[in-house]
Amino acid sequence: MEITFELGYALDTFYFLICGALVMWMAAGFAMLEAGLVRTKNTTEILTKNVALYSIACIMYMVCGYAIMYGGDTFLSGIVGDGATGEADPATYAPSADFFFQVVFVATAMSIVSGAVAERMKLWAFLLFAVVMTGFIYPMEGAWTWGNGVAGSMGECGVFGLYSLGGIEEGACADITAFNWSDFAGSGIVHMSGAAAALAGVLVLGARKGKYGADGSVKAIPGANLPLATLGTFILWMGWFGFNGGSVLATASVESANSVAVVFMNTNMAAAGGLVAALILARLLFGKADLTMALNGALAGLVAITAEPSTPTALQATLFGALGGLLVVGSIVALDKLKIDDPVGAISVHGVVGLLGLLLVPVTNDGADFIGQIVGALTIFTWVFVTSFIVWMAIKAVIGVRVSEEEEFEGVDLSECGLEAYPEFTSGRS
Amino acid sequence: MEITFELGYALDTFYFLICGALVMWMAAGFAMLEAGLVRTKNTTEILTKNVALYSIACIMYMVCGYAIMYGGDTFLSGIVGDGATGEADPATYAPSADFFFQVVFVATAMSIVSGAVAERMKLWAFLLFAVVMTGFIYPMEGAWTWGNGVAGSMGECGVFGLYSLGGIEEGACADITAFNWSDFAGSGIVHMSGAAAALAGVLVLGARKGKYGADGSVKAIPGANLPLATLGTFILWMGWFGFNGGSVLATASVESANSVAVVFMNTNMAAAGGLVAALILARLLFGKADLTMALNGALAGLVAITAEPSTPTALQATLFGALGGLLVVGSIVALDKLKIDDPVGAISVHGVVGLLGLLLVPVTNDGADFIGQIVGALTIFTWVFVTSFIVWMAIKAVIGVRVSEEEEFEGVDLSECGLEAYPEFTSGRS
Amino acid sequence: MEITFELGYALDTFYFLICGALVMWMAAGFAMLEAGLVRTKNTTEILTKNVALYSIACIMYMVCGYAIMYGGDTFLSGIVGDGATGEADPATYAPSADFFFQVVFVATAMSIVSGAVAERMKLWAFLLFAVVMTGFIYPMEGAWTWGNGVAGSMGECGVFGLYSLGGIEEGACADITAFNWSDFAGSGIVHMSGAAAALAGVLVLGARKGKYGADGSVKAIPGANLPLATLGTFILWMGWFGFNGGSVLATASVESANSVAVVFMNTNMAAAGGLVAALILARLLFGKADLTMALNGALAGLVAITAEPSTPTALQATLFGALGGLLVVGSIVALDKLKIDDPVGAISVHGVVGLLGLLLVPVTNDGADFIGQIVGALTIFTWVFVTSFIVWMAIKAVIGVRVSEEEEFEGVDLSECGLEAYPEFTSGRS
Repeated sequence: MEITFELGYALDTFYFLICGALVMWMAAGFAMLEAGLVRTKNTTEILTKNVALYSIACIMYMVCGYAIMYGGDTFLSGIVGDGATGEADPATYAPSADFFFQVVFVATAMSIVSGAVAERMKLWAFLLFAVVMTGFIYPMEGAWTWGNGVAGSMGECGVFGLYSLGGIEEGACADITAFNWSDFAGSGIVHMSGAAAALAGVLVLGARKGKYGADGSVKAIPGANLPLATLGTFILWMGWFGFNGGSVLATASVESANSVAVVFMNTNMAAAGGLVAALILARLLFGKADLTMALNGALAGLVAITAEPSTPTALQATLFGALGGLLVVGSIVALDKLKIDDPVGAISVHGVVGLLGLLLVPVTNDGADFIGQIVGALTIFTWVFVTSFIVWMAIKAVIGVRVSEEEEFEGVDLSECGLEAYPEFTSGRS
Repeated sequence: MEITFELGYALDTFYFLICGALVMWMAAGFAMLEAGLVRTKNTTEILTKNVALYSIACIMYMVCGYAIMYGGDTFLSGIVGDGATGEADPATYAPSADFFFQVVFVATAMSIVSGAVAERMKLWAFLLFAVVMTGFIYPMEGAWTWGNGVAGSMGECGVFGLYSLGGIEEGACADITAFNWSDFAGSGIVHMSGAAAALAGVLVLGARKGKYGADGSVKAIPGANLPLATLGTFILWMGWFGFNGGSVLATASVESANSVAVVFMNTNMAAAGGLVAALILARLLFGKADLTMALNGALAGLVAITAEPSTPTALQATLFGALGGLLVVGSIVALDKLKIDDPVGAISVHGVVGLLGLLLVPVTNDGADFIGQIVGALTIFTWVFVTSFIVWMAIKAVIGVRVSEEEEFEGVDLSECGLEAYPEFTSGRS
Repeated sequence: MEITFELGYALDTFYFLICGALVMWMAAGFAMLEAGLVRTKNTTEILTKNVALYSIACIMYMVCGYAIMYGGDTFLSGIVGDGATGEADPATYAPSADFFFQVVFVATAMSIVSGAVAERMKLWAFLLFAVVMTGFIYPMEGAWTWGNGVAGSMGECGVFGLYSLGGIEEGACADITAFNWSDFAGSGIVHMSGAAAALAGVLVLGARKGKYGADGSVKAIPGANLPLATLGTFILWMGWFGFNGGSVLATASVESANSVAVVFMNTNMAAAGGLVAALILARLLFGKADLTMALNGALAGLVAITAEPSTPTALQATLFGALGGLLVVGSIVALDKLKIDDPVGAISVHGVVGLLGLLLVPVTNDGADFIGQIVGALTIFTWVFVTSFIVWMAIKAVIGVRVSEEEEFEGVDLSECGLEAYPEFTSGRS
């Protein structure tokens, strides 16, 4: 083997691993963000959900998810291979690095769900859903777009059925690429997908007691620990460099290195644009510099750029992020009007803005068109929402999804985990 | 293009991007440090300032700062270029990576300001200052030393004027390199510069109510959350590897790789030296192991080594850091004597020790001399302090810089952000 | 020099530095984990211990530890070398990067101790122990296995004596490699070693007042801040990628890149396996989803895989991690039965599971056998435990190791540091 091939292989592998470690770090970001935005009495439980869902995602993706999404003879041989040394068309990075990078994406999709169903869902019902979501629902839709695994070959039929639901004529589904559909790092595949599962869960679960008055009033339930929420946002911001940057899938050439660099730059600018836009809009609407809206604005900017961070200019990325920041503020207000209770705004940030991200792709990427983006979005949303709804309903029927009213009032920390998050601090109000 | 050129380009670009991500992470460090060192009633606001200033810094640097500091036809074409493939003297890393790395430095300089003016400044006054600081004041002084942009060509005149203020004869300013001035990663350009802007702000703003008694007494106002402050320090410590390590500007050769490695090692040793020295001095002075002094000692060690982390031995780096740690304890005490109220010690850590860092350069780097370092320090300080003072005064005249006494007493979280940082925790004392 | 050699040197160096930065980050993880698991009144002190021990470890390893463990003429020339350009058998990475990577390992070993002796040990007694542990005890045992320094050549005799204690016949000790002993990244050398020092400290120190009743009852003393403990665990999880991944010691070839990738993947899977296993076992034993057990399960999974993360399949890594997760729950319960008071479970996580990790090596690595692993484990444990016990006893005799009963009751924050960690939050219960 050429030494230059070895060096390129090594650099691409190292790049994947570091990007993967940054995406793994996003699990900590979600945990801190959600722990900061719920009430103290539900904090231990949301932490437990976050650490457990990440672990379950890793295990289920190893057991079957990766094989469904990308193929491979067995989950063992598929991911511990020795690289493709000496082959005619050699792999350009270690297969284990690919698994590591992909597995942290599954966990991200699942992390989105935990915040939306916080403060009233049974812990084990949630973890059961995580098993199905990470082992089956996500890998199936991932396979249609990114993958070439078991579901990849089944994809045409699966997509076919869903397209029909969406009112698209039959022939169109035979080849999804006919739609010029593009989702660079997963505004739809990861973020909107997580939000669709979350929305299904929230609909099955209902709102928190006291959130919505009979008179249509909405009670603000402030997060208990804003430094934690801010830390979580910064962690997600940092981790997103790996999420988007790693999705270039290579860095060991001038072309790919330039692409990775543009992606890092644009990811950062979009977050900045989203934060500033949401902060200013919240100031105009509410009269105050609302920190939680600003944080959601940054996350919205990140989600908005994720579908295509490699083709916009820095200015476009900033503006796309700002659009996301404006949209998320409106969406959070609108969902409350609809009495869809999402304690951390996850459905707005990842779902509504995820859709925006998909629709923005054709603005800068000639390889995509609006029809294709809409079809792709509908496919993902329909698949994840419908299957998730069925799974949530099945879990509800068998073990129930919601804690008792008394447990909800006392907080799920004691009933589910037996531990208070802050046992020495007096809880004056909740 | 040679494959080895491509690999070097790719490695240098990736190195820049990872170092940049680490410096971005410092924004979280400043946010946590400052949130831990203020009182609970001012925590949401300081978090809001930190996330917003980072975003503003990114946007303003894109809009004009980068062009002022490093040139480029327009801010769009200048930073999304495709690399310099095929050119006679090709770039050795992606231009977007350079922008990304530089933009997080601007944010660092601005982060220094927020802590010093905490607990009594109006949020929007601060953000307005951030616009000017990151879009103009910092890029101008950066251009004189590091850059070759718009201000670079204007630099001789600009510098001329400032040197005259400093009492240096006119001719000397024609060529700043005549002074053998050196500031490797920005003890002066970033840290002292941020501190100079902070000092101007504090002088315009005045001390917090109750901080200094009429009888000359100084009231200790302890930070509300020391785990957060410690976390922030660790984040900064980690991020500093990118800050100093990335400032070698290349890593794809034996020589540059060795330099980067020495910089990582020395950065770490200086922080360790600063922490231990400050901890011991605080023990001797106050009789207790003062954690906040120890944390400031570590940060002081980092600032002290930043002007030249590549030439000292590990032992020298440790000693330089220790000097910084000793100096910062004395400086914090001295500033309180002068009734300059800096809630987090930012002026001492970044300003006083930043100067120390500049003055230590000639000890190990033959390419610098004390006169040059002093001239450089004076230039930066004078420029940033004077322009900042003017801007602060202008903001004061137009919208005011200080919250009302009642708002200060109640805490700026409610008046500025409308959100408590810890709404469920009883605040017994503040 | 060949340009390809330069590129490989640069890539390996950069890989070392990034892995080292991740391991440095583990210091923050330990600090947050321990600060979250102690009571509020002892939080400032545990934070102080953590920042100080890291700094002391760096300084002592520079002063003598590195030379003891790996040799080199003096601690200065040994670690600031210019690389081995032009030599017949050139180094493949910067010597300073090696020092940086190794120094953060020492700090990790020492971090393990601080949690176990929390809430009742004198700060300065602890720091004094840190000086000896990081400058001498750890480098000696490290030299026998990994090193070739001063102690390396003394190793045979040193090991000889210890083997004799362990009942092995004399001749066997002449060559430790005769035992086919293997500890890839330090389940024994770092983790069990830290736990052995901790155990000695706990035995000298005794349990916290009120922890164990005269009737054999064990009082649960819950951690004061579970979000912090969760954050700490995530930080450690992330940092462990550097800890294990960097221990491949090279990445600039297809073979080494594949190995690093497998190590990242397996490290992640082991943590996931440990977390899920501990969570389920705790649910079965205690009826609740115990978050602190889940966190300790993840850490146990990480410790279990650390002795050999490069040869298991992903499934084996998950199962090894799960074994660690089960074992740690049992061990924590058992140590309480033995009235060995370890507030954070460090002895169980790092000691008991560290031993498990060593014993699991031969399952997948033909280069190791059980006898060798047992001999190695005994050697390390005996050396570290005996020398630590002597040092703790000496410190006890000279300055004392335990705070007064009154100080313990009031909390060590006030007596040792003079600062409360959360001064504005009402401590209702402690």
